[in-house]
Amino acid sequence: MRGVFILFKFVVKGTAFSSADSKNVTILEDALFCISESGIITKIIFSSEEEYAKTIHEYSAINKLQELAKGQYILPGFVDLHIHAPQWAQAGTALDLPLYDWLNTYTFPLESKFSDEQFAEKVYSDLVSELIKNGTTTALYFATVHREASLRLAEICSEKGQRGLVGKVVMDDPEQNPEYYRDTNAQEAISETELFIQEVLELNKKTPQGVYPVVTPRFIPSCTEDSLKGLGDLAAKYDVHIQSHCSESDWAHSFVKERFGKNDAFALNDFGLLTEKAVMAHCGFLSDKDMKLFSEKGTAVAHCPISNAYFGNAVTPIAKLLREYQVEVGLGSDISGGFSPSLFDNIKQAVMSSRMLEDGVDKECSSETRGVPNSSITLNEAFYLATAGGGESLSLSVGKLAIDYAWDIQIIDTQELPIFSEEEPLMDIFQKILYLSRPENIREVWVQGRKVHDKNMKILKGQ
Amino acid sequence: MRGVFILFKFVVKGTAFSSADSKNVTILEDALFCISESGIITKIIFSSEEEYAKTIHEYSAINKLQELAKGQYILPGFVDLHIHAPQWAQAGTALDLPLYDWLNTYTFPLESKFSDEQFAEKVYSDLVSELIKNGTTTALYFATVHREASLRLAEICSEKGQRGLVGKVVMDDPEQNPEYYRDTNAQEAISETELFIQEVLELNKKTPQGVYPVVTPRFIPSCTEDSLKGLGDLAAKYDVHIQSHCSESDWAHSFVKERFGKNDAFALNDFGLLTEKAVMAHCGFLSDKDMKLFSEKGTAVAHCPISNAYFGNAVTPIAKLLREYQVEVGLGSDISGGFSPSLFDNIKQAVMSSRMLEDGVDKECSSETRGVPNSSITLNEAFYLATAGGGESLSLSVGKLAIDYAWDIQIIDTQELPIFSEEEPLMDIFQKILYLSRPENIREVWVQGRKVHDKNMKILKGQ
Ligand SMILES: [Zn+2]
Ligand SMILES: [Zn+2]
Repeated sequence: MRGVFILFKFVVKGTAFSSADSKNVTILEDALFCISESGIITKIIFSSEEEYAKTIHEYSAINKLQELAKGQYILPGFVDLHIHAPQWAQAGTALDLPLYDWLNTYTFPLESKFSDEQFAEKVYSDLVSELIKNGTTTALYFATVHREASLRLAEICSEKGQRGLVGKVVMDDPEQNPEYYRDTNAQEAISETELFIQEVLELNKKTPQGVYPVVTPRFIPSCTEDSLKGLGDLAAKYDVHIQSHCSESDWAHSFVKERFGKNDAFALNDFGLLTEKAVMAHCGFLSDKDMKLFSEKGTAVAHCPISNAYFGNAVTPIAKLLREYQVEVGLGSDISGGFSPSLFDNIKQAVMSSRMLEDGVDKECSSETRGVPNSSITLNEAFYLATAGGGESLSLSVGKLAIDYAWDIQIIDTQELPIFSEEEPLMDIFQKILYLSRPENIREVWVQGRKVHDKNMKILKGQ
Repeated sequence: MRGVFILFKFVVKGTAFSSADSKNVTILEDALFCISESGIITKIIFSSEEEYAKTIHEYSAINKLQELAKGQYILPGFVDLHIHAPQWAQAGTALDLPLYDWLNTYTFPLESKFSDEQFAEKVYSDLVSELIKNGTTTALYFATVHREASLRLAEICSEKGQRGLVGKVVMDDPEQNPEYYRDTNAQEAISETELFIQEVLELNKKTPQGVYPVVTPRFIPSCTEDSLKGLGDLAAKYDVHIQSHCSESDWAHSFVKERFGKNDAFALNDFGLLTEKAVMAHCGFLSDKDMKLFSEKGTAVAHCPISNAYFGNAVTPIAKLLREYQVEVGLGSDISGGFSPSLFDNIKQAVMSSRMLEDGVDKECSSETRGVPNSSITLNEAFYLATAGGGESLSLSVGKLAIDYAWDIQIIDTQELPIFSEEEPLMDIFQKILYLSRPENIREVWVQGRKVHDKNMKILKGQ
């Protein structure tokens, strides 16, 4: 091996699927992914290239070549653009209730318990592990109003190796929030948020994959004007991410319109909360003008199709957002308005909900008037939302298998999927992966060039 | 132990969930389920009863007491009322295609390959195991036009211990079916079906859990009047089950109306195909008169919510069928119009689709006109569809944990579900089970008092 200059931390040989753009998926067949010391894809070598054999030889000799087994494939790790971390403790319950009861009987009492840091530790730790096991390598979290527990969530992401964007929630309006669970006042909400931002920025310095503080007004109805204004100012001062809910349902949409005489989007914008680094959940009731504003501001939509089936009152017109207005869109699990921690499940529901918007739902309407033409999205588009779309929404170089992107990936084993022919086309295999994978098919998950999950190891250790 | 008279094959001690009726779920807390030699629940003893302690003592002494571990719960096994077994080989692919292309480029060419019995063996064997692993203890299958391969499917069910109802598909109209894949003519379709019925009835004699032949016209558009008439006669002659598709989509609905001047339901009835033992898939476009006819005939609807999002053009009004017309309804995976072999997935989608029918999908409509009031079903109702509703649809004593019902169950381990409190109410745990279980949480599956799946055994053997 004399004279060999080792450029890369390691090299991975395998077949991968990655979005070329919002419509098209590229197959990188039997490629060599060359990962730098800092966990970045610095080179991709194809078998047609001269250095292919040489690179295999060199990195295999020094035990730094990972070769995927037959039937294994690489997908980018998923980006979950909207998830309420504390609500993991109630995921899957009470979804038959109307929103008001769901919030006041289940959600607010639960979130208030996160003043207890031990409880927070237990729930957050379980959730982050669960998300990683489900292939989610980046997540944009709502925590609770409690600064300490919210910081703990960021620390857990840092420790477990997930790329976490975390917001201490602000909800200070005494008229709209229960006394046992809200910020004391706007001033304290702002000062706690500022301290939280500083703490997470500090934590980020020792976190290779990155943790990020997020300015997080719960949604306009739960905040005073003072806090909304203060949060917009903080976001500008520290140049950090912003998240909130926007035009989620009939109720939320109407409430804001009545309070400010304008739609959510324009009201948020007035407070400096629609920025390039802002992600707004749901957006089911955006008008065309709102969509245009999102597009101009570079603000992203977190589409949460499972949650919307329960609380959204309509299907967010994703095809229109993507194709007509070029708005950045990604996918959110919205635990626990949505029940599933898996973006595989949300990919499937995004496709199904879009088809139901296109075809309509009520048989009593004629087929001509039942649905909204050109609304359905393809499986490729839904995959894009869960990967590259999420990365773009966060202005982070994740969600794609391309040069200068982070090595944030999941390795899927198709051994137990229904593939009965050696000649199965790779695009059919890709579809089977998206429609039929379970967490048990996800063998490994890597973030920023570091292995954060190994299914086989777990079975060996667990038994 | 002298003097003890052993009545039961074994006794199981655990907490179970079972439908009391279509709306309500009963919790059988820490009960003793006493199973007879023939695999039937013959007694259920509660802890308040005198013989409780004595029974535990006696059956534990002779090693015939199975005690569920902490965090484990019993659900009835699921009944899949509609599944195309051969299409397992293409599950999850090509769902972006229009129905015509999906059928002619993928489905018919695939089904035609089941003339090859080795291929059939491979696919059917994998599917039946997969369904069992997913908690499906009874399945109503479409096979293909090939009698031999269809019989092989029944044999595989018999061997693997699943309760299988299997139909050799009839599709004989030369105008509607490709030349490479159809029955030669009506006469042969009928004679092959009759032979198939006799063969499966013979097989049933040595199958404790039961295998059943099913008269299976693919759907009206693919059959001649001769074959439809002949199949109705056969069903009456042998008193066997019937299955077909009914009013699935705009196209199918209109086609039948044009051909016979009436809706699918009445046309099927004319041929003697709407009976107490008949199950019709989809039924998205039943009129009120059709529903009434279903109710009178005791014919069941197999609701396939995932498949319908792709090919149904509307949401089947399940709440109306159940509540207004008392039609028997169960759930179908409809592999591969639906992608998932799991009825857990179909339970969730049944709830979500019903909510989308209730709320509507198009934000441009006012909230008053957007949806169809009283359409949403609860999680309990969806659970009923997957269990007791399926059993009733088939006129079989399965799908409930009650006296005289078969011991067809699945044991769910909630250890890895997000349960963080010792005091979690059992109904919340039930909801978490339905919304969050994966095949890996299903520890054991039993059919007719016989264990047909053991997750732990598989891990031990598999590694
Ligand atoms: Zn949310
Ligand atoms: Zn079907």
